[in-house]
Amino acid sequence: MQFRSYMSLALEEARLAAMRGEVPVGAVVIDPAGQVVARAGNRTRELSDPTAHAEVLAIRAACAQIGSERLVGHDLYVTLEPCPICAGTIAAARIARLYYGADDPKSGGVVHGARVFSHPQCHHRPEIYGDFSAPEAEALLRGFFAARRRAGVAEPE
Amino acid sequence: MQFRSYMSLALEEARLAAMRGEVPVGAVVIDPAGQVVARAGNRTRELSDPTAHAEVLAIRAACAQIGSERLVGHDLYVTLEPCPICAGTIAAARIARLYYGADDPKSGGVVHGARVFSHPQCHHRPEIYGDFSAPEAEALLRGFFAARRRAGVAEPE
Repeated sequence: MQFRSYMSLALEEARLAAMRGEVPVGAVVIDPAGQVVARAGNRTRELSDPTAHAEVLAIRAACAQIGSERLVGHDLYVTLEPCPICAGTIAAARIARLYYGADDPKSGGVVHGARVFSHPQCHHRPEIYGDFSAPEAEALLRGFFAARRRAGVAEPE
Repeated sequence: MQFRSYMSLALEEARLAAMRGEVPVGAVVIDPAGQVVARAGNRTRELSDPTAHAEVLAIRAACAQIGSERLVGHDLYVTLEPCPICAGTIAAARIARLYYGADDPKSGGVVHGARVFSHPQCHHRPEIYGDFSAPEAEALLRGFFAARRRAGVAEPE
């Protein structure tokens, strides 16, 4: 399976998240053999869990599956620039390569704000490939928030 | 119950974590009425979960209990300066006041490195009271790592 196919799976998870009323972000974890070992979309509202972001759920599922808190040699594909929670989790799990879609100037923590991987206190920095399938990821987010505004639902802070 | 008593509970959780072979950090969530609603120590190894830090586990438990991803008006006591994962979770959960023990120049993300609360991308900054019962928290950590070195166990990166 190729890069674009992995990101397509992440985009599919983002669409499923939107259908559940969650902010549409999706993530996929790929093992060193190129197999999809976990995929997830946001579930913060459904689970009443502020950490239930797509990246965290996918990484936790992959870790549980291999019985380790580290995913050495694994890659993560996610539709949006990770926030500090997710960037910290990616570092802690020793993800090898991070591919992300749209930049997130509002909440991102990779190339914005906290820039989690850019300090000596970050014990592991993955290879990072941003702006990957960004138009599709951005369109999903824009469509979701536009629909919510039309429905009179306030945007989250 | 007073501030010191809440931190004593967090220190007790840190001691229990050490007894399980986990890095000794403990955390307690206090509701607006001053009641302890959740307490936890690190369980990253036991659970094979890189996000199973004391703060995350305590916040997730408190959120599950009240059925919300936000803990408005709740306080968090933790024995060590939160890392970026935990600081991001504290912000996302809208914790009102953060009391922490020892500074963590190696992995901290509040007054070191990513300084998660100090960027416009952080949507909520709690009141922060650091260096709280720090000597006890530091002694616990020093004792734990000294014992591991004596036992020939490599320190985590």
